[in-house]
Amino acid sequence: MMQEKKYTVEKDTKIPFHNNVAYCIGTGRMGLALQKEYQEQLALVQEEIGFSHIRGHGLFSDDMAIYQEYTDENGIKHAEYNFTYLDLVMDSYLSLNIRPFLELGFMPDKMASGKQTVFYWKGNVTPPENYDAWCALVQATLRHLMERYGEQEVVQWPIEVWNEPNLPGFWKDADMEEYFKLFALTFAAIKEVDGRFRVGGPAICGVEDEKWIRCFLEFCRKESISVDFVTRHHYTTEVPENVGHYGYVKLREPEEGYANLQTTRDIIDSFEEFKGMEIHITEFNTSYIPNCPLHDTNQNAAYIAGQLSRLGDMNESYSYWTFGDIFEEQGVPFTPFHGGFGLVANGGIPKPTFWTFKFFADLQGTCVHRTDEAVIVRKEDGSYRGIVWNMTMDGTGEDICRSFRLPMEGIPSGEKGECCILTKTVDEVTCNPLKLWHAMGEPSSLSGEQKKLLKEGARPLVEAQRKELEDGMADVCITVRENGVVYFEVSPVKAGGDRGYCYKRVVGK
Amino acid sequence: MMQEKKYTVEKDTKIPFHNNVAYCIGTGRMGLALQKEYQEQLALVQEEIGFSHIRGHGLFSDDMAIYQEYTDENGIKHAEYNFTYLDLVMDSYLSLNIRPFLELGFMPDKMASGKQTVFYWKGNVTPPENYDAWCALVQATLRHLMERYGEQEVVQWPIEVWNEPNLPGFWKDADMEEYFKLFALTFAAIKEVDGRFRVGGPAICGVEDEKWIRCFLEFCRKESISVDFVTRHHYTTEVPENVGHYGYVKLREPEEGYANLQTTRDIIDSFEEFKGMEIHITEFNTSYIPNCPLHDTNQNAAYIAGQLSRLGDMNESYSYWTFGDIFEEQGVPFTPFHGGFGLVANGGIPKPTFWTFKFFADLQGTCVHRTDEAVIVRKEDGSYRGIVWNMTMDGTGEDICRSFRLPMEGIPSGEKGECCILTKTVDEVTCNPLKLWHAMGEPSSLSGEQKKLLKEGARPLVEAQRKELEDGMADVCITVRENGVVYFEVSPVKAGGDRGYCYKRVVGK
Amino acid sequence: MMQEKKYTVEKDTKIPFHNNVAYCIGTGRMGLALQKEYQEQLALVQEEIGFSHIRGHGLFSDDMAIYQEYTDENGIKHAEYNFTYLDLVMDSYLSLNIRPFLELGFMPDKMASGKQTVFYWKGNVTPPENYDAWCALVQATLRHLMERYGEQEVVQWPIEVWNEPNLPGFWKDADMEEYFKLFALTFAAIKEVDGRFRVGGPAICGVEDEKWIRCFLEFCRKESISVDFVTRHHYTTEVPENVGHYGYVKLREPEEGYANLQTTRDIIDSFEEFKGMEIHITEFNTSYIPNCPLHDTNQNAAYIAGQLSRLGDMNESYSYWTFGDIFEEQGVPFTPFHGGFGLVANGGIPKPTFWTFKFFADLQGTCVHRTDEAVIVRKEDGSYRGIVWNMTMDGTGEDICRSFRLPMEGIPSGEKGECCILTKTVDEVTCNPLKLWHAMGEPSSLSGEQKKLLKEGARPLVEAQRKELEDGMADVCITVRENGVVYFEVSPVKAGGDRGYCYKRVVGK
Amino acid sequence: MMQEKKYTVEKDTKIPFHNNVAYCIGTGRMGLALQKEYQEQLALVQEEIGFSHIRGHGLFSDDMAIYQEYTDENGIKHAEYNFTYLDLVMDSYLSLNIRPFLELGFMPDKMASGKQTVFYWKGNVTPPENYDAWCALVQATLRHLMERYGEQEVVQWPIEVWNEPNLPGFWKDADMEEYFKLFALTFAAIKEVDGRFRVGGPAICGVEDEKWIRCFLEFCRKESISVDFVTRHHYTTEVPENVGHYGYVKLREPEEGYANLQTTRDIIDSFEEFKGMEIHITEFNTSYIPNCPLHDTNQNAAYIAGQLSRLGDMNESYSYWTFGDIFEEQGVPFTPFHGGFGLVANGGIPKPTFWTFKFFADLQGTCVHRTDEAVIVRKEDGSYRGIVWNMTMDGTGEDICRSFRLPMEGIPSGEKGECCILTKTVDEVTCNPLKLWHAMGEPSSLSGEQKKLLKEGARPLVEAQRKELEDGMADVCITVRENGVVYFEVSPVKAGGDRGYCYKRVVGK
Repeated sequence: MMQEKKYTVEKDTKIPFHNNVAYCIGTGRMGLALQKEYQEQLALVQEEIGFSHIRGHGLFSDDMAIYQEYTDENGIKHAEYNFTYLDLVMDSYLSLNIRPFLELGFMPDKMASGKQTVFYWKGNVTPPENYDAWCALVQATLRHLMERYGEQEVVQWPIEVWNEPNLPGFWKDADMEEYFKLFALTFAAIKEVDGRFRVGGPAICGVEDEKWIRCFLEFCRKESISVDFVTRHHYTTEVPENVGHYGYVKLREPEEGYANLQTTRDIIDSFEEFKGMEIHITEFNTSYIPNCPLHDTNQNAAYIAGQLSRLGDMNESYSYWTFGDIFEEQGVPFTPFHGGFGLVANGGIPKPTFWTFKFFADLQGTCVHRTDEAVIVRKEDGSYRGIVWNMTMDGTGEDICRSFRLPMEGIPSGEKGECCILTKTVDEVTCNPLKLWHAMGEPSSLSGEQKKLLKEGARPLVEAQRKELEDGMADVCITVRENGVVYFEVSPVKAGGDRGYCYKRVVGK
Repeated sequence: MMQEKKYTVEKDTKIPFHNNVAYCIGTGRMGLALQKEYQEQLALVQEEIGFSHIRGHGLFSDDMAIYQEYTDENGIKHAEYNFTYLDLVMDSYLSLNIRPFLELGFMPDKMASGKQTVFYWKGNVTPPENYDAWCALVQATLRHLMERYGEQEVVQWPIEVWNEPNLPGFWKDADMEEYFKLFALTFAAIKEVDGRFRVGGPAICGVEDEKWIRCFLEFCRKESISVDFVTRHHYTTEVPENVGHYGYVKLREPEEGYANLQTTRDIIDSFEEFKGMEIHITEFNTSYIPNCPLHDTNQNAAYIAGQLSRLGDMNESYSYWTFGDIFEEQGVPFTPFHGGFGLVANGGIPKPTFWTFKFFADLQGTCVHRTDEAVIVRKEDGSYRGIVWNMTMDGTGEDICRSFRLPMEGIPSGEKGECCILTKTVDEVTCNPLKLWHAMGEPSSLSGEQKKLLKEGARPLVEAQRKELEDGMADVCITVRENGVVYFEVSPVKAGGDRGYCYKRVVGK
Repeated sequence: MMQEKKYTVEKDTKIPFHNNVAYCIGTGRMGLALQKEYQEQLALVQEEIGFSHIRGHGLFSDDMAIYQEYTDENGIKHAEYNFTYLDLVMDSYLSLNIRPFLELGFMPDKMASGKQTVFYWKGNVTPPENYDAWCALVQATLRHLMERYGEQEVVQWPIEVWNEPNLPGFWKDADMEEYFKLFALTFAAIKEVDGRFRVGGPAICGVEDEKWIRCFLEFCRKESISVDFVTRHHYTTEVPENVGHYGYVKLREPEEGYANLQTTRDIIDSFEEFKGMEIHITEFNTSYIPNCPLHDTNQNAAYIAGQLSRLGDMNESYSYWTFGDIFEEQGVPFTPFHGGFGLVANGGIPKPTFWTFKFFADLQGTCVHRTDEAVIVRKEDGSYRGIVWNMTMDGTGEDICRSFRLPMEGIPSGEKGECCILTKTVDEVTCNPLKLWHAMGEPSSLSGEQKKLLKEGARPLVEAQRKELEDGMADVCITVRENGVVYFEVSPVKAGGDRGYCYKRVVGK
Repeated sequence: MMQEKKYTVEKDTKIPFHNNVAYCIGTGRMGLALQKEYQEQLALVQEEIGFSHIRGHGLFSDDMAIYQEYTDENGIKHAEYNFTYLDLVMDSYLSLNIRPFLELGFMPDKMASGKQTVFYWKGNVTPPENYDAWCALVQATLRHLMERYGEQEVVQWPIEVWNEPNLPGFWKDADMEEYFKLFALTFAAIKEVDGRFRVGGPAICGVEDEKWIRCFLEFCRKESISVDFVTRHHYTTEVPENVGHYGYVKLREPEEGYANLQTTRDIIDSFEEFKGMEIHITEFNTSYIPNCPLHDTNQNAAYIAGQLSRLGDMNESYSYWTFGDIFEEQGVPFTPFHGGFGLVANGGIPKPTFWTFKFFADLQGTCVHRTDEAVIVRKEDGSYRGIVWNMTMDGTGEDICRSFRLPMEGIPSGEKGECCILTKTVDEVTCNPLKLWHAMGEPSSLSGEQKKLLKEGARPLVEAQRKELEDGMADVCITVRENGVVYFEVSPVKAGGDRGYCYKRVVGK
């Protein structure tokens, strides 16, 4: 059975909708950006979606090789900075028209006060042994970037201090005082380089988040730190059940998450001087583990559509974690589809959620309709673009059908108005590379032919029809299967065609 | 209502099926091969289908600039040959891994005995004023090609003398005697260069074709010409009705055409010395006009599927006319979709028939099933590939469903056998760029964005499922909408997967 | 023996020098822009030099297929316009970041009043039978371009009416009155479409040029036509001696040509209302024939260097005729080097003159030195760029050496100043593809390997040295062989290097 | 002053010369092959030189992530193998038409018996804790490769066991007995997978090399191991003096090295059963440190030319260490030119030695001349290719000139024979990117423009001349500056040219 609903959009409707979907995207650690496959996946993402910023860990981790030391003939130790790999990474980002949202971390081993590390790739998460050395590193790095890429360019790059210090795994003992010290000194060091830099924190996830936000702002107030923005993370699944290499999860009701985010908004707004301050969600996804098969499904795509329709309400931006599956936090994946965070699976195969982002990135204009399952905008030329999704909490559900009557302007009077209705459908039938891969036998090593086939099976179904207007209104009916996301465009169509061409005669219908 | 039929394929079945779909493809005149868009369309065709040979008109026409003359200080006229453009064209063919099936024609203006021309681009169709000059031109051209590309390579290129001399539009007065003279002299000239060249004719279309074939062979017998193969053309529509720039046609029942081709086969076989001689259909398509909207439809794709399943029965090869829509016989097209002969529309958009060729090109193996609407082959590795099509004579019809029980080998005893059933569907819903273009308002000038969209709407829908075998048999049910063509692959699937991965749990079904 | 001269550049020197080298470049007829090799040559030119505009003949000639006619059921003839090829050409130009300098011509055969044609490719050079039809064609074309590429973009494209009407070969009887009629009607038609278009003429070459310029301006005065700019051509060789396919010429002293151009300037300035009006040289080269081997030589490169240093004195722009050798005015060339007009030889091989343009395009800044054999500019960052050339009138001469003392700013006091002197040398020894091709035996068909080799032999020799300043001055000594062109850059060098690196120790010198 | 020598080559001369220059090339550790810049450098090398095999360390090191372990619910530990990165690396090699020369090593941390590591990137150099686990890893890896790339392909890949076990830094305590154990078990494990694999060792460098070779063969004899080939390394500089990041060295006389290699040859040949066994030099270069500025110089190029002319005398192959400068054994380089081993500097800039390899790779044919400073071969078509080099031991020296009289066949009697003499010159003047980089101020971060310039300054100067033969002999005079390498080709030239073309008239000389 199919649920049906009908809506009529009035002329001049204007509904609030802050769509900042393309502001930022997450990435595996910086050092992975040297890899060819990483760059290819990012190029694919940029070609179709075009994010403005990219954020990930490990800028100062040892594989980036920035921080080095040597001892001179007098036995005195000196720092020296190696920007060879940093340049390669930043060059490649800028060539793909994406800029870093700089996350300062983790600690170079040689500068660290301890041995504790996080992840398979062993990022050191202890405070610096010497804060002066840390600040010098930060300043040298920024100055180098400004020299290479120009001051005007680099001061636009937002800076975030560290990652999830509220978890002991990411910051020794989740020591709040120590983090505030790090933040204050780093903030000052950056502003000394150039006051135009925008610096934020505390980059926390949802553990004791209320306390951390509140204390952080109180600290800033006390120390008269004019922090530029607040950052936090947002994940919406329960604790995973682990089986072999994988973790299985249960989705949480979206409203729970929105309520949590609203709390952060409210806390900030309760500080007179920070009221209305930008919040950047510097990480979000359904699950927070990189081996969660849910990420690869159509269900994930539909759930994320809902998120993208709402996250802009309270937050300036929201950065999906991550663009691709070149990622090593829990080791190197064994198979191309392995529940990685990425929009793109290894082998360069777009996952369904990739298209959710593509569709929202194309949703530019004035919002004229918004519900929990649809958003529609009108462009300046009078055409419409919309998305309807059919989210399910357990992976199963029934088809839905949503009808919209849209006022279509610009039809010369006396002319028979027509419109073109274009749809792009991503659902379990039309665009389901995971199912295709499963049907192939879940191969761990893809041949070139298999990659090609999976890419062919990972594209939206594109359909279009031409329809007469009724009283200047376009009647658009969008059917969406369970876990589906459908993008549509409705535009006026010019009458006429080439001399002698008659489409009806061509197709005999 | 849906028609259903069921078939069971027995083990070791082997049905005759000569699939030579990729042997040769047609092209607009040689000079157009200099164009960038032409090369891009051909590259697309070669990447997906990979034809071995290419045949078109105009090798010796003036835009190729091969034949030149000058007068020396004593007033004596000399020939000189300019291979600048010929080299560019042949280089580009070989770089795309395709070889010419050389058609010798038309007449250089300076060498011609008359002014009569054919086409918008004015190919001269009169006999040479001087047959020695013609033979010298042929020989100089072949020798140049042999020097540039190597003897071994060039002697493999089949050679056809002229085009459709049985039409007065293509050969002055359709003068049979004159054509035989041309053939005999040209044949001798080529063999003088290298006896390994294979030379054929008379390249006729279906007008007085029986008479021409018979007389041609009688002539060869009389003159002791050991012609290497016979060539003819094959079109299957009625005379078009012209409206504006376009011609509308009615398809003929396929059997009519096959009967006509059988006659050619029978005539040849009635000559003792020519019995079994190769017939190359050097042109075929539904309609013989380059402005027939039918060519762009799904109906055409389904009709051609039928042709490709049969044409190899009587003929060595059959060359679709043409690969792309850079073509000027009736002038430059006004719109990207205009009923051109091509597999690819201008803008680089594959038409439905493109995929029919792609599917047949992938149909390599031993035939195990063949009807008027399906062909299935088994590959050496025990997997199957098949095509089912749903041809309609008037563009409308009902869906069909065809089921096949296929013996699946190589499943270790005791193991639960499974198979992967992959389908690629080209029909009016899934892959219909013409409809999309119509819905857009039939634009004559495509923007980059429109081209991208049309390409997205011009790809088969790829689906797959994994299914348990029953008694070692795979049950495959293929549903095909009216005018649809469905390609499928059935392969055994290895059990097992990565440690902890459970697809059913992932998708919740 | 070597000539030597020494110069010292004073601080704050500023010498007039209007370097508009990259404003416009010539091309073979528009229809050739469809060709792949044409596009590849243009891409090479744009990558290295980057012209802003491109101008050539044949926009309305029949191979572009724009103007078409049909007769309706009532026997009435209608015009219809086909922009299929025009779009392909303009798309390709804009994608290479170059815009057309539109030359309106020649006459579509169907619209022409006569049969007279010019060139191998038969451009019709007779007036329109019906001026209304002509004006409608012009307007339809401009409106189409504006719709496709945007008004803002297209109104920037300069428009020139016809080509060389002062020659009877290009305009029937060189009929001045008829041309003025064409100009006036066309001018009005264009301005009716959009007053922002800039329109000029009379596009003459140096035959009766004084008379034509004067009469043209008098006509404009009389008819109150506010013409936007004047166009003319500029060639600097004597009448060629023809041998076989080639024409051999003698260069004229440059001053002769400059004097001729000055006359045009003076005539214009003598009209009160046209004083100071822009002159665009819409064609220039040494020889005006496309089979003049001189074009391929180093001598040509050195001679053109002189031209580029002077032509901006009297003229707003000067468009070299042409960028590449895909060109058919006298037929298709028999060999890759054949004396074509192009900066690039067929096969994609840059000729020496290519580099003269590249060097001048890089010569951006404030002029600090200018003679008949050198130009030097200073950039804002205090570095210098210069060119020295060694022109010979008969192909032979002696080496020259020119020394420059250049004030080098920005060296911190107390620091040992150093500079980097970079040179790029194009002369008969270092960059002489013509000689290389001759040594190979002057092959007419180049293999891929030969093309690669010729490209390798067609690049400037790049050398650099590091030198101490003396009293804050850089001493730069440039030696130029006969027919050579040397480009140089002089920049301050930062002291220091990586820890432990000592270049002197590395090279042992 | 210039040294001159003259030689005459007799007809039918045939001199022994085993030129196997393109058999194998070295690489930084396998994991670096994932990087984009690595792949670009390798692509450049393959495009110009085209090596058949590639060999480097770290196949089993942790960044390749092949060896993994997990503990099941019963607490039992299991191995599992992850081939994700291995596939990426091997796919990329094969796509560049290069195959691995597999070096088995180093030890996965989890399998190792100790903690000792080598290099900045920490390759574990201790024996396996459990040899069964090691053998299982080797077998699983080979079986996976055979499944993915085909048995026929993979069994052709030579296999070497470990690297430089004669150094305690590379193999714990340089324990010979332990190495022999490793070799014997590994050898057996491989042959069990497929007897067609060819396996060799002991991969030693020149420390106690005589003893190691002798003991290794005695061990094989004793254990009846039919080893397939012997491998060793070859470096020719003294111990470096370290200053900052760099090491400065003194070259050794080449003859010292050849004598050392001859000893290895003699030892092997002294074993009856191993007499004539192939020796593969799996690493060679001048210096054995990756921060030796000598590697970037023209002096290195000339010295290596000498090596390439001799190393084939005693050895089957000789693999230069390495193709590029993406390399981390002593950390990440601070600057593009830093004395890395590579043929290509970071930024994609070919070093002079790159061209030495290119020239030798092009030197295919029958050797007709060989001295300590020149080699010449004759190709089947009668043309010649030669190299002359001017090696200096201390970086300074004088120019040399070598003349050769070469018999030129195939000139029809009565015809004036001519030849084309083509030279490509790499010396400190014509192709010296290191000097260019030094002149620029030794920048550590190259801009795109600087990279382009350095590439332009890193190409051989190509020149050619056409010369008359004397008595059927070509007189070729090659001048080589200090540290220069000159490649030349001499070929007969066909007389004639296009109608009317006269080169002498064109250039006026």
